[in-house]
Amino acid sequence: MQNKVRVDIALVHYPVYNKKGAVIASAVTNLDLHDLARLAKTYDLGAFHVITPVKEQQAFIGRILEHWLFGWGGVYNKDRVNALNLVRVSDSIKQAREIIQAGTGKEPIVLATGARERGLALGIEEARRLLAGDRPLLLIFGTAWGLAGEVIEQADYVLKPVQKCATYNHLSVRSAAAIIVDRFLGDRG
Amino acid sequence: MQNKVRVDIALVHYPVYNKKGAVIASAVTNLDLHDLARLAKTYDLGAFHVITPVKEQQAFIGRILEHWLFGWGGVYNKDRVNALNLVRVSDSIKQAREIIQAGTGKEPIVLATGARERGLALGIEEARRLLAGDRPLLLIFGTAWGLAGEVIEQADYVLKPVQKCATYNHLSVRSAAAIIVDRFLGDRG
Repeated sequence: MQNKVRVDIALVHYPVYNKKGAVIASAVTNLDLHDLARLAKTYDLGAFHVITPVKEQQAFIGRILEHWLFGWGGVYNKDRVNALNLVRVSDSIKQAREIIQAGTGKEPIVLATGARERGLALGIEEARRLLAGDRPLLLIFGTAWGLAGEVIEQADYVLKPVQKCATYNHLSVRSAAAIIVDRFLGDRG
Repeated sequence: MQNKVRVDIALVHYPVYNKKGAVIASAVTNLDLHDLARLAKTYDLGAFHVITPVKEQQAFIGRILEHWLFGWGGVYNKDRVNALNLVRVSDSIKQAREIIQAGTGKEPIVLATGARERGLALGIEEARRLLAGDRPLLLIFGTAWGLAGEVIEQADYVLKPVQKCATYNHLSVRSAAAIIVDRFLGDRG
């Protein structure tokens, strides 16, 4: 399995909404890093961008990566080295775009995801057509109560929610990212 | 969206393998409960069975459920009540089967999942045909280094690994469960 165009994912910790709809910076969690890095490696993605402008949070990510890539973690479990090698820390989505552009020479197409129904959202089959193009793709996921409106507005496309007819749609970002990456790139049959 | 037959999931903490291939009882984690319960609710599953014979672990699950179903957790986030209501604690897969049989009057078909390639494994399209039958289905997932051989042998079917051609296939059980449930029951298009 090899993807034709480079596909990256980004997990956004700022700007996202909190429960009350205010824009916040959420905390990075160790488990999100592992789960999404392993997902990225399994689906042969270009990189997994962790987006936070908070320097303490970036330092926390640095400590986790150091443990697994250069410390005891990697001795204990070599598979995690391969996965966590894909992590890139960025201040902003803009910076993640620049990293992709620097690596591929092409501007990525940004697809925002979320649980809310939106007007002109793209279905997965339409989105998969972008895989036949020549521009890299960046799928972005929000933590906390979801991506802030300004992020959605800057995206090239918004994907339809995972289960658009469900009466309950409160998947964890770990589950939603796994499902969307699989729908996008998974082997079928 | 309504599933025709009842579909349940089970997360097995015993018997599973550890890194060295010995059979162990793994520890229940708070996050697995939340992620898989939210997945179960989103996909309209019958129940999410947490399998462990260890009484201290069952008590731990009880404390989590009490916090979210009857305590402050449910006041803070009502959505979690709806999801965690689906959790059932069982000593064994056998007991989970009995719960399903008691609820539906029919013996469930058990499908084991795992990352290893196996001989007569079922592809997802073949597995989806079982949804048109009249027996309830139980998808089982292993924690730690995967379901012990005895569990696989007692299952009616084994599903093919998620990314059978991937050179790296070490998804977290949270990601794997999300992907498999979506392939099985998700809205398409």
